[in-house]
Amino acid sequence: MLRRSLGSIVSLASRKYSGKSFSSNMAQIINGNEIAKEIRGQLKQELKDLVDSGNPVPHLTAVIVGEDPASEKYVQNKMNACLEVGISSETKRLPASTTQEELLQLIAELNKDQRVTGVLVQLPVPEHINERTICNAVDVDKDVDGFNELNIGRLALDMDGIVPATPLGVKRLLEHQNIETHGRNAVVVGRSKNVSLPMAILLHADGKYATKALDATVTICHRYTPPKELARHCRQADIIVVAVGKPGLITKDMVKPGACVIDVGINRIKDEKTGKFKLVGDVDFEEVRQVAGHITPVPGGVGPMTVAMLLHNTLKTAKKQFCDRQAS
Amino acid sequence: MLRRSLGSIVSLASRKYSGKSFSSNMAQIINGNEIAKEIRGQLKQELKDLVDSGNPVPHLTAVIVGEDPASEKYVQNKMNACLEVGISSETKRLPASTTQEELLQLIAELNKDQRVTGVLVQLPVPEHINERTICNAVDVDKDVDGFNELNIGRLALDMDGIVPATPLGVKRLLEHQNIETHGRNAVVVGRSKNVSLPMAILLHADGKYATKALDATVTICHRYTPPKELARHCRQADIIVVAVGKPGLITKDMVKPGACVIDVGINRIKDEKTGKFKLVGDVDFEEVRQVAGHITPVPGGVGPMTVAMLLHNTLKTAKKQFCDRQAS
Repeated sequence: MLRRSLGSIVSLASRKYSGKSFSSNMAQIINGNEIAKEIRGQLKQELKDLVDSGNPVPHLTAVIVGEDPASEKYVQNKMNACLEVGISSETKRLPASTTQEELLQLIAELNKDQRVTGVLVQLPVPEHINERTICNAVDVDKDVDGFNELNIGRLALDMDGIVPATPLGVKRLLEHQNIETHGRNAVVVGRSKNVSLPMAILLHADGKYATKALDATVTICHRYTPPKELARHCRQADIIVVAVGKPGLITKDMVKPGACVIDVGINRIKDEKTGKFKLVGDVDFEEVRQVAGHITPVPGGVGPMTVAMLLHNTLKTAKKQFCDRQAS
Repeated sequence: MLRRSLGSIVSLASRKYSGKSFSSNMAQIINGNEIAKEIRGQLKQELKDLVDSGNPVPHLTAVIVGEDPASEKYVQNKMNACLEVGISSETKRLPASTTQEELLQLIAELNKDQRVTGVLVQLPVPEHINERTICNAVDVDKDVDGFNELNIGRLALDMDGIVPATPLGVKRLLEHQNIETHGRNAVVVGRSKNVSLPMAILLHADGKYATKALDATVTICHRYTPPKELARHCRQADIIVVAVGKPGLITKDMVKPGACVIDVGINRIKDEKTGKFKLVGDVDFEEVRQVAGHITPVPGGVGPMTVAMLLHNTLKTAKKQFCDRQAS
């Protein structure tokens, strides 16, 4: 109760003076665009060194099945980022009528193709295709998304492998901002296999192994966590990572003063004032920033980090393949 | 704070009348021996049906490296249980000086041997052998312990696979006692890869997939969770599963009245009164039973369930192999 009272006092204070001389009470906004740009710069240099030392240019092939405008946009962002860093890339577009067998056939070809060092199937795939079968079909060594069952197993076991880009990006943000995680309370809201579960694993596991995990106490909340309990868990958290796709889920009264709030949600909603569509996260940004210590915006927070970490993964898988080839 | 006060009142009341006419206030003791016996009876029938329909008798090979009295005892318990259920089994004993290469060679032979349907390497292995390399070397389809990286990945993804015996046994105990987990708060104390992490996955994940997980809100506490925070998380929990190997770690003041307390710890300590050694768990049993709604004893709680679930896994792996052979 003490924490909540404190929270109310601080947030009232923030509201009173917001935008004026006391705006320093507001959360520090984590600039994902800037941090991702910095990382892309490092990756560009890394790639140059790799190629300069006689290796081929890494090549990422993305596959889109069907016509989803969001998927098109995501893949376009990834391809643009590849171009910037110097990774060769191409997008294969298959019609929505593609059978699972045909998609598996393409993946098998890409797995075999020595020129292709990274393979990515943009999700979601059409409903008649089993997403899990597809993710597992991508060669574990070319699996830049880290969605193959073997890469998930390795992550769970703190082993070196490919970590899904979004949780890896969140980890990088926390490290970049020097957010203390060791022994702190973290809450992950959501239990998706591509974001939330790998996030919970990275947050709670032992920092002394290959994944350099974050040693936090972690609570996983999800659709069956009663709202009152969700609020209580969040209020006790030093770090909140939310990834569920519900605008406004995390409100000011759920956040402990000074907590770090990472918003993975991307929701397209209609702005009541302008009538135009806009992107928002799962956090009530304007309110929560009055209480939190750090907060990521949407867009410009986690999103660009996901793309940067995909490039990181693409470079990592390529390096491993080049190394394996030299060894064999 | 309210909960803690309530806890104190209830526990005082329990202490006052303990052992007398008000002993019904005491926790129900979950009899793992009895539940495991019931399961072994079912498995015996299942095995009979399997063999009666023309399949070979499943065969489990256990490997012990070095001479650890605890390992000898654990494996002996497993072999005895195999005998009771009708599973054929044998134990291969290798000297502590066995190299990793030699052990991998033996595992490769067992993997190939059609007669052997289950392979188990008793942990711990001597320090000069990499435990993870060994666990991953066991064929995923013969991996009755569920420690192979692929089985861990499948569990994390809610896929059908082999689940490590101890967390699977705890799940069965909870189900057998009709402990409500859906939307409840569970705390897992510990973050081991063989017990705690699979437990946290089974507790939090979605009940509608292959692993039939438990849909609880889950908090993972560990060595870096400050004691005060550990106590607070535990006091909020409807279910506590502790698996760290610290006698007396969970005390009465840390348990919410009516909570279900599952003790996975097995610690050999000297009884100050008798001077003899005895087994205790991680929970202060005599105190906590005055507050909890359900509690497992040590010994006789989780231990026998682990053995029963190993048999379950052995039967499951055998069935899959027989089925695959028929299909091919």
